Amino acid sequence: MKVKLAKYYGFCFGVKRAIKIAENSKNASTVGPLIHNNEEINRLKKDFNVETLDGLDGVEGVKKAIIRTHGIPKNDLKFLKKKDIGIIDATCPFVTKPQQICEQMSEEGYDIVIFGDKYHPEVKGVESYAKNGAMVVMSLEEIQNHIFSNKIAVVSQTTRKIDEFMDITNYLITNYKEVRVFNTICNATFDNQFAAKELAKNVDIMIVIGGKVSSNTKQLYNISKEFCIDSYLIENEKEIESDWFKNKKLCGVTAGASTPDWVIEKVIGKINKI
Amino acid sequence: MKVKLAKYYGFCFGVKRAIKIAENSKNASTVGPLIHNNEEINRLKKDFNVETLDGLDGVEGVKKAIIRTHGIPKNDLKFLKKKDIGIIDATCPFVTKPQQICEQMSEEGYDIVIFGDKYHPEVKGVESYAKNGAMVVMSLEEIQNHIFSNKIAVVSQTTRKIDEFMDITNYLITNYKEVRVFNTICNATFDNQFAAKELAKNVDIMIVIGGKVSSNTKQLYNISKEFCIDSYLIENEKEIESDWFKNKKLCGVTAGASTPDWVIEKVIGKINKI
Repeated sequence: MKVKLAKYYGFCFGVKRAIKIAENSKNASTVGPLIHNNEEINRLKKDFNVETLDGLDGVEGVKKAIIRTHGIPKNDLKFLKKKDIGIIDATCPFVTKPQQICEQMSEEGYDIVIFGDKYHPEVKGVESYAKNGAMVVMSLEEIQNHIFSNKIAVVSQTTRKIDEFMDITNYLITNYKEVRVFNTICNATFDNQFAAKELAKNVDIMIVIGGKVSSNTKQLYNISKEFCIDSYLIENEKEIESDWFKNKKLCGVTAGASTPDWVIEKVIGKINKI
Repeated sequence: MKVKLAKYYGFCFGVKRAIKIAENSKNASTVGPLIHNNEEINRLKKDFNVETLDGLDGVEGVKKAIIRTHGIPKNDLKFLKKKDIGIIDATCPFVTKPQQICEQMSEEGYDIVIFGDKYHPEVKGVESYAKNGAMVVMSLEEIQNHIFSNKIAVVSQTTRKIDEFMDITNYLITNYKEVRVFNTICNATFDNQFAAKELAKNVDIMIVIGGKVSSNTKQLYNISKEFCIDSYLIENEKEIESDWFKNKKLCGVTAGASTPDWVIEKVIGKINKI
């Protein structure tokens, strides 16, 4: 089976940075999974004894705590600071940005709208910086019944689709006097998405590699599926089924922003053999 | 011929206000046409001796100068203030708003984008308040080759179409970090446009009444034409040709924001007789 890789795929700047931080912090513990990729988390445990805590619960007795790429809520950070724990911040700078925006804009009296998934750790963290709370929305319908003040600031979860962000901002701009739009969508996500789309159009089968709970991986999968009906989301090479490749000639491969190269290489190696 | 009026049409708040101001300012002179409607300007001259100056040129010797609904450039206002002339400001408050926004946002270091026609008096006025100049654009193409700073403030000429404003803002939001969007499009324009569209869909012929240089009237005409191919733009009842109504049953009528009711009534009277 012939394989073609997407022009952009895999690890983003924030993830590369967090892994380097973790590798340099032997015996530390991360508050929640460092990134959304179990394979990499296992490697960090094995090679650097970096433990993954469920959350703040297991933090007692820990000497060094690493804050994950997605950031943590403001109160959790306060809680950690009160303890005798060394704090190592691996929050992606692109996530710190919307946190700061929420804090500043709510101080300036803006209503805050966050476009994203309210159950996602990044969004929970960002939301916690809005002094008077924020409205977290995933769809237009959710804001249409809400009445805002005439000053609204909008940020986005870094991994969302720009088109859907536009649906939200366009509605607000049409209906309110001032809408201060901060495009906090990460370029890396964007580049990977665009490359996945271009590739999916021209292959017979698409393999998307990444964590099944990773938001950006799921979006790569959805985009691929739109342009190539035979798209599959896998975490590693073991999930590959040779049946998928029957009568196919060209296989496209892309990977989520938390997928390490060594996982991608194993997948490609297996597909090449089919 | 049966006639149906649009749900919203004609004079807006700013125009009604300006005419009242002019009627209360006998023997004054307006700096440029008060509103974009020759019929009404002639009436103000006849009944209230309110003269229309071409611009600042004829202002010497004038005792009271009325500033038109569209506003005037900042330097023109300064010039007037230095003279021994009483200044009566009939600038529409919805136009004063984008003037203030341009001034404040340029002070705060934002690049200013004005969506509108750079030759329109309203836009010239608004633009003059941007301390370091503004980019005035009518289409997406015009901004695509320009490089802005990462802080952009956007306003619109009050009479533009919201959809086209969105094309501009969406491009900027996609490509820049912070876009502060001030929706300065006037609801009256919006209401008239929506009502024209709804009416044009359901009639055999559309008559749009208004000044031929009036931006909002031209837009009403374009919208009408889109949904009713037999649409005509007229300034008064004298321009009506009975040929237009051959084989037609229902005639829709709308009017620009500067068209007085007495002009509309004359038009309807004439159509009724066809």
